[in-house]
Amino acid sequence: MIRVGVVQTSPRFGRVAANLARALRLMATKPADLYVLPELFATGYQFSSRAEVARLAEPVPTGRTCRQLIAFARRHRCAIVAGLPERAGRRCYNSAVVIGPDGYLGCYRKLHLFGEETCWFAPGRKAGAVWTIGAFGSGGSGKATGSVKIGVMICFDWFFPETARSLALEGADLICHPANLVLPYCPEAMRTRSIENRLFTATADRVGTEARGGRAPLTYIGRSQITDPRGRLLFRAPAKGEAIGVVRIDPRQARDKRLNSYNDLWEARRPRAYRGLTVRCKGERRIKD
Amino acid sequence: MIRVGVVQTSPRFGRVAANLARALRLMATKPADLYVLPELFATGYQFSSRAEVARLAEPVPTGRTCRQLIAFARRHRCAIVAGLPERAGRRCYNSAVVIGPDGYLGCYRKLHLFGEETCWFAPGRKAGAVWTIGAFGSGGSGKATGSVKIGVMICFDWFFPETARSLALEGADLICHPANLVLPYCPEAMRTRSIENRLFTATADRVGTEARGGRAPLTYIGRSQITDPRGRLLFRAPAKGEAIGVVRIDPRQARDKRLNSYNDLWEARRPRAYRGLTVRCKGERRIKD
Repeated sequence: MIRVGVVQTSPRFGRVAANLARALRLMATKPADLYVLPELFATGYQFSSRAEVARLAEPVPTGRTCRQLIAFARRHRCAIVAGLPERAGRRCYNSAVVIGPDGYLGCYRKLHLFGEETCWFAPGRKAGAVWTIGAFGSGGSGKATGSVKIGVMICFDWFFPETARSLALEGADLICHPANLVLPYCPEAMRTRSIENRLFTATADRVGTEARGGRAPLTYIGRSQITDPRGRLLFRAPAKGEAIGVVRIDPRQARDKRLNSYNDLWEARRPRAYRGLTVRCKGERRIKD
Repeated sequence: MIRVGVVQTSPRFGRVAANLARALRLMATKPADLYVLPELFATGYQFSSRAEVARLAEPVPTGRTCRQLIAFARRHRCAIVAGLPERAGRRCYNSAVVIGPDGYLGCYRKLHLFGEETCWFAPGRKAGAVWTIGAFGSGGSGKATGSVKIGVMICFDWFFPETARSLALEGADLICHPANLVLPYCPEAMRTRSIENRLFTATADRVGTEARGGRAPLTYIGRSQITDPRGRLLFRAPAKGEAIGVVRIDPRQARDKRLNSYNDLWEARRPRAYRGLTVRCKGERRIKD
């Protein structure tokens, strides 16, 4: 059994040190083996210019946010998935770092950029980023627990069923999903993502309103949640206010893909019968690297 | 504008003539340009043997069910999508016929067979079956209306996001979805299918209970529904009882794939970044034909 926590925060734009400290305090109130934090959790979301993005973005894993998350994970013998703006050379990415009890493990760059993000960030280049995290235990229960294979996607990635499917096909037991949701659809849709891929999902969303640079205000819908492989809600936070929810999950439930005595999810798939899923569509931009 | 109807029936197993007559009477009570009927709507669902399937299955489009549907469609200047067991040589398929005001248009064979269906039916070989249906109007409003591009999938096909995605990529405005639902997940999941593909869906389900050959009874959940490209419910039938719902839709709403001023659904897709979606998976059986 793995204790998975979703952390729902209310960051103030640009106050990185304060937002980070507040998130870590919230995490310390509830022991977990793995915490998921929102997209861009320490900076805020509504950037005004590329210069502002570049100023708030940080190199991974040497930036201040990442270093403090690593220190927390070592001290508490836990793993963390958290969204932050990553600076890599002249580019910035909307990324999520993956940190284990022994340090930095890797980084996922958001594949499907939403709205104005397309002005600030470069898109990632591949779906299906998974990491095996295990050997927890010295922080909380005192007993070693099993391992869990986590896949990462960020916010609007949920809209494209290919993203969660790619993670499931790569073996994810649990999709860690940092988000900054402004539309109402995602929480229910993530139940479908669980059902169709027979896995757990943990969506960490933020709350609050941002209105910067004279633009239309963005209000975030909260409702951070954890679902099981049958789409059941194991936890859902309110639409307003900071919150943390920790539930125990058994990752092996996600490895049993039998839907009934006749159907196994992966055997029932018909990849040769599908159309157009991986060919390049008209209008897809070539990603330069 | 196109008037789309979903027809929720309560067939008695094996009473093909009576079930068919009852469905046609129900359809005649509400004029529509396109009716969607449930999976296996005239035969019932819970077969007991391959011999029974072969006896109740019929050649398409020359069988009795198909001929009567064609006659209805000609008389009422409408289109029909309806599920029936198709006999083709020595094989039977769980199929849906597509009929226009001027006659038979084609047939879709269910790609993902559920439970015991795997014992009775051969699976179809391709997703993405779409037909353009148009030039309605002489039956109901007296005015010619536009055309609609329909895609067809059957019941459990909903579980695999690749099915609806294939139809959307082939240009479907509306997914016609004959079903015999026994699990609770589909109605909400079809809202996600609408949202993620930005199109209409019309799920026609049956009601009632079947318990044949000493097997566990199957109770069908009704709740036939029509959704719009934002996942809103335009109609939902009750969980019990026969019903028919007809709504007017504008297929052009499904052709506008802009999600906001920065994102177009098809441009935002990243087909080269996804993993494993169309390669053959371990365990996939080779389909012989």
